[in-house]
Amino acid sequence: MAARKTSVLLFFFMFLALSSAFPRNKNKYKPCKHLVLFFHDILYNGKNAANATSAIVAAPEGANLTILAPQNHFGNIVVFDDPITLDNNLHSKPVGRAQGMYIYDTKNTFTSWLAFSFALNSTDYQGSINFIGFDPILIKTRDISVVGGTGDFFMHRGIATINTDAFEGEVYFRLKVDIKFYECW
Amino acid sequence: MAARKTSVLLFFFMFLALSSAFPRNKNKYKPCKHLVLFFHDILYNGKNAANATSAIVAAPEGANLTILAPQNHFGNIVVFDDPITLDNNLHSKPVGRAQGMYIYDTKNTFTSWLAFSFALNSTDYQGSINFIGFDPILIKTRDISVVGGTGDFFMHRGIATINTDAFEGEVYFRLKVDIKFYECW
Amino acid sequence: MAARKTSVLLFFFMFLALSSAFPRNKNKYKPCKHLVLFFHDILYNGKNAANATSAIVAAPEGANLTILAPQNHFGNIVVFDDPITLDNNLHSKPVGRAQGMYIYDTKNTFTSWLAFSFALNSTDYQGSINFIGFDPILIKTRDISVVGGTGDFFMHRGIATINTDAFEGEVYFRLKVDIKFYECW
Repeated sequence: MAARKTSVLLFFFMFLALSSAFPRNKNKYKPCKHLVLFFHDILYNGKNAANATSAIVAAPEGANLTILAPQNHFGNIVVFDDPITLDNNLHSKPVGRAQGMYIYDTKNTFTSWLAFSFALNSTDYQGSINFIGFDPILIKTRDISVVGGTGDFFMHRGIATINTDAFEGEVYFRLKVDIKFYECW
Repeated sequence: MAARKTSVLLFFFMFLALSSAFPRNKNKYKPCKHLVLFFHDILYNGKNAANATSAIVAAPEGANLTILAPQNHFGNIVVFDDPITLDNNLHSKPVGRAQGMYIYDTKNTFTSWLAFSFALNSTDYQGSINFIGFDPILIKTRDISVVGGTGDFFMHRGIATINTDAFEGEVYFRLKVDIKFYECW
Repeated sequence: MAARKTSVLLFFFMFLALSSAFPRNKNKYKPCKHLVLFFHDILYNGKNAANATSAIVAAPEGANLTILAPQNHFGNIVVFDDPITLDNNLHSKPVGRAQGMYIYDTKNTFTSWLAFSFALNSTDYQGSINFIGFDPILIKTRDISVVGGTGDFFMHRGIATINTDAFEGEVYFRLKVDIKFYECW
């Protein structure tokens, strides 16, 4: 376990040198709406039932549901219900929930695949935003698709740039999500 | 169990007072195509193999696959293959199948997260419609995104308003899906 | 097992007669970008850990994770990380990875439901393409939705026509994916 964590950190710092995945063709268009939000994921590990906001619900043969699977967690599906905040403080008043799932999706490195929604319920925004995409988590910033929205985000489309703002071992991580809508209605 | 069901009903009637989730900004645009369909979900509970149209396939640690998980079913993934009908009768001739999955996605209330397709095969419509979204099931009407389509729904986008038209305990529910396409091709 | 495989083949050849699912309304528009790619899936069966590119991670009650579930695999969720190639040769240099999941989604025939991304990283293309859709695998060609993209596929939408180019039993299949973008940015 300790060796694995060290190698994760090593990879992490190696890849921080790269500024972003797929950087081409990004600054040509101007967003019609722009939002920066944070969400916080606390993974259930068998001991933190009260605080956990996500749980491993599927794993390949031989793995279990309280420890992430051995080969870079390949095959784990995690269901989450994470608080969304306006700043990077886990204890700030949530403005909504991030719900859906992530999959650990590579055998020889750490990547995830995301399908989820933001359900925002604040004085500023009421509505949902739907996301799908490939997330190479060891790269500093990653782009995923905003495929639709409802309420204040009726029919919106765009790109969300994700950045792992902080993490603690394999239990807590915080994502900064920079949402640029290029199609507003 | 009985206590839990009562509290579900209680919540249900409390929330029926609210007319819809995220009601703002809905009536500004006129749909280019409009469809109302029903689909019917019969959840496998270990005894109804012949009739069941869906099955729990993933659950958090400690839960099993024939009873929905204890904390508001948080973490359950259900795969479904549900008949779609033109009216609210389960026994009407199906015009297609609703296929995909739903996730129970909140620890302290009942919500689901949806990713699925309608595959329509009738004299009126041939094609598929793809949906994704957050579904707070205790609220009367909920909006999700129509993110694409094929065949007669080639490249379509829109909003689907979902309404739990009927349910029987935790085994059967019927959803009315009011699909408004705002982008037709 | 042998009987089941024979019936699969029988269905397969019966359906090959049909040219495609939902053929109407397809040739009215001209794509703004066109890509043909192949991806290769090797399902983990308990013995091929080194070569496998996908794994069953969820199954209905009574099924296990090294053999596909009995009723046409209904309810199995498979997570994959498959190499993408420019031609139909598994051993060609990959130009990216296909990552996400497929669900076997009908009790009385073979269909799947797809949600995945192409992450392309070649001299020609850098970026991701996100797909979702119903996939009746016994029909020769099937259309799914391209719901978004990033990098070189920034904000793109389109239709992907999928064709099972080859398969070996229940362990290997190769899909030809003909991606037609109708919305380019």
